[in-house]
Amino acid sequence: MMLFDERTGVEVIERDECLELLASHRIGRLAILDGGSPLILPVNYAIDEETIVFRTGEGTKLDASRGGPACFEIDETNMEEHSGWSVVVRGTLHEVTARDQPKLDRLGPLAESWINDRPRVIELRSWAITGRRLRPATPTDS
Amino acid sequence: MMLFDERTGVEVIERDECLELLASHRIGRLAILDGGSPLILPVNYAIDEETIVFRTGEGTKLDASRGGPACFEIDETNMEEHSGWSVVVRGTLHEVTARDQPKLDRLGPLAESWINDRPRVIELRSWAITGRRLRPATPTDS
Repeated sequence: MMLFDERTGVEVIERDECLELLASHRIGRLAILDGGSPLILPVNYAIDEETIVFRTGEGTKLDASRGGPACFEIDETNMEEHSGWSVVVRGTLHEVTARDQPKLDRLGPLAESWINDRPRVIELRSWAITGRRLRPATPTDS
Repeated sequence: MMLFDERTGVEVIERDECLELLASHRIGRLAILDGGSPLILPVNYAIDEETIVFRTGEGTKLDASRGGPACFEIDETNMEEHSGWSVVVRGTLHEVTARDQPKLDRLGPLAESWINDRPRVIELRSWAITGRRLRPATPTDS
């Protein structure tokens, strides 16, 4: 069954497929609040069930945004076909600390970083996971 | 001359190159505020000097965020090399209306959309344009 957004006609990606897409990618973008304004940071990430996990350094903007709301996004686009998809995860950021050692043992090794000196492990606890897909126009569309 | 972020060692992309990268791409992600939380929307865009231009529909989240702060981002990543770059534009969203017809005539045709029925033209007036590049590690790095 395919679901469509009533207003735009864009196809809705169901939750299970959103989670599959999140599990099969490694780079996304995180939007946090910085001085009341959104700020997008590219991040490499891991997923543990429905939790997105990042590493960050001390004193970074991501580190400073712990406890706050955030949005994580992945996408793929085909420029020739004008098609693509995106998955968006909305939630709040929390540090995984040594107080939760079993979780840190599980998530810390998952969340490798491409930049050295990123000792903190941050998780995005989601309250919404949604996806949209724009299929290429076909001759049967009118 | 190459500039580096003192804390992370990540290379800083200078403003002129940021503008070139923005001019040579067509798809990015916009983060807006939605109910006090960041929300990322993939968008196709155009650039007019230092202004990022989008089309949107009536009653969309992007339409509703006019007047508010926003962040726009483009990036490219090489998964094998663990390298990549990103450019971030921060600013505020404003509608280009018929009250500014010359501007609308110039920007409206630039900002085509892949989705029909997107009559509104929104510009992101920037207060910051920044970029970062992570180069692949080479044997001379230690």
